[in-house]
Amino acid sequence: MVVKVYGPLYASPKRVLVCLVEKEVDFETVPIDLLKGEHKHPDFLKLQPFGSVPLIQDGDYTLYESRAIIRYCAEKYKSQGTNLLGNTIEERGLVEQWLEVEAQNFHPPINNLVLHILFASVLGFPSDPMIIQESQEKLGKVLDIYEERLSKSKYLAGDFFSLADLSHLPFTHYLVANMGKEYMIRDRKHVSAWWDDISNRPSWKRVLQFGAPF
Amino acid sequence: MVVKVYGPLYASPKRVLVCLVEKEVDFETVPIDLLKGEHKHPDFLKLQPFGSVPLIQDGDYTLYESRAIIRYCAEKYKSQGTNLLGNTIEERGLVEQWLEVEAQNFHPPINNLVLHILFASVLGFPSDPMIIQESQEKLGKVLDIYEERLSKSKYLAGDFFSLADLSHLPFTHYLVANMGKEYMIRDRKHVSAWWDDISNRPSWKRVLQFGAPF
Repeated sequence: MVVKVYGPLYASPKRVLVCLVEKEVDFETVPIDLLKGEHKHPDFLKLQPFGSVPLIQDGDYTLYESRAIIRYCAEKYKSQGTNLLGNTIEERGLVEQWLEVEAQNFHPPINNLVLHILFASVLGFPSDPMIIQESQEKLGKVLDIYEERLSKSKYLAGDFFSLADLSHLPFTHYLVANMGKEYMIRDRKHVSAWWDDISNRPSWKRVLQFGAPF
Repeated sequence: MVVKVYGPLYASPKRVLVCLVEKEVDFETVPIDLLKGEHKHPDFLKLQPFGSVPLIQDGDYTLYESRAIIRYCAEKYKSQGTNLLGNTIEERGLVEQWLEVEAQNFHPPINNLVLHILFASVLGFPSDPMIIQESQEKLGKVLDIYEERLSKSKYLAGDFFSLADLSHLPFTHYLVANMGKEYMIRDRKHVSAWWDDISNRPSWKRVLQFGAPF
């Protein structure tokens, strides 16, 4: 079965793509142009009522929300590719903890930076310097906690690469490659080593070849 | 083994408490007074570097982030109490999808309403009418999508109660019981029936007995 992934150009769908590559699952991509509003088209809203990407179709099964999809893929294809969930219930618990930290603590400020630095002019709203400053301060504090954590274990959930690390790839890539803020990673020794490790995985290099919206 | 749950008065820890009751797991609670800043005390920050509740200790094992903890408990105590994860990988996928919808779409606006309507004066910041209005509009749109979903299945992930429903209990309780906004639930027939169903579970009634911070 080939998994269909909608919206491959964008950051959240790339969480799904890199997970599928790690799990050695065949997939095809379905372009969705957010700048043309294709995610608000009635046919798409029937599949994803909130009008956002990614969305996958795995045969008759439809699923949305990137972090739900990567959990599903890691579980369904448990016996192949990289184990992304840890080996025990306790390790899985820590994977879940750091996935939640990514979603609740890391993502909101980095998403604000991406929106206000990279997308404001394309999407036609004014970039807000106050939001940029506050978000950068918040993200810095989160990265300080990551630095402490990564001084004790190679990856976030322990000494194994997992969904928790993988989930950071797309937005951190924007920070490093497109936003002139690589120093936020490089100023923190253990975060920097972690980033080199995870961003040099062949899976991520393959996903970058799918391109970006700008 | 008795699980220790830190911060039982507050909404996010109540996700954990109701999960433990559903799973028939013995627990004890450890009070943390956020209004006195106990979550920023160095001893607490050693356990939870972001300074938030809940946190659990299950023997030597420490875990934080409420939605990570409920996944861990539902998995570890799979063979007892209510099954909260569905019966198949596909059902679990939908549980994850709606847990993510709760975290990403439902929680941000309802959390803003709780902060600006219930906690602003206690926490000493000005309540912002614009944030209240925008958040209420956003929450209304999310609840419209829930209404459509719940017209087709009894619970969010399907015809079975799961972590996805459970995760909505604490903040929706604030909306209905403390904020004078019960009409947002009652104006939507299927959401209203769903709320009656989940909020009348004996587990939730027991958790309400732990009290609230005001």
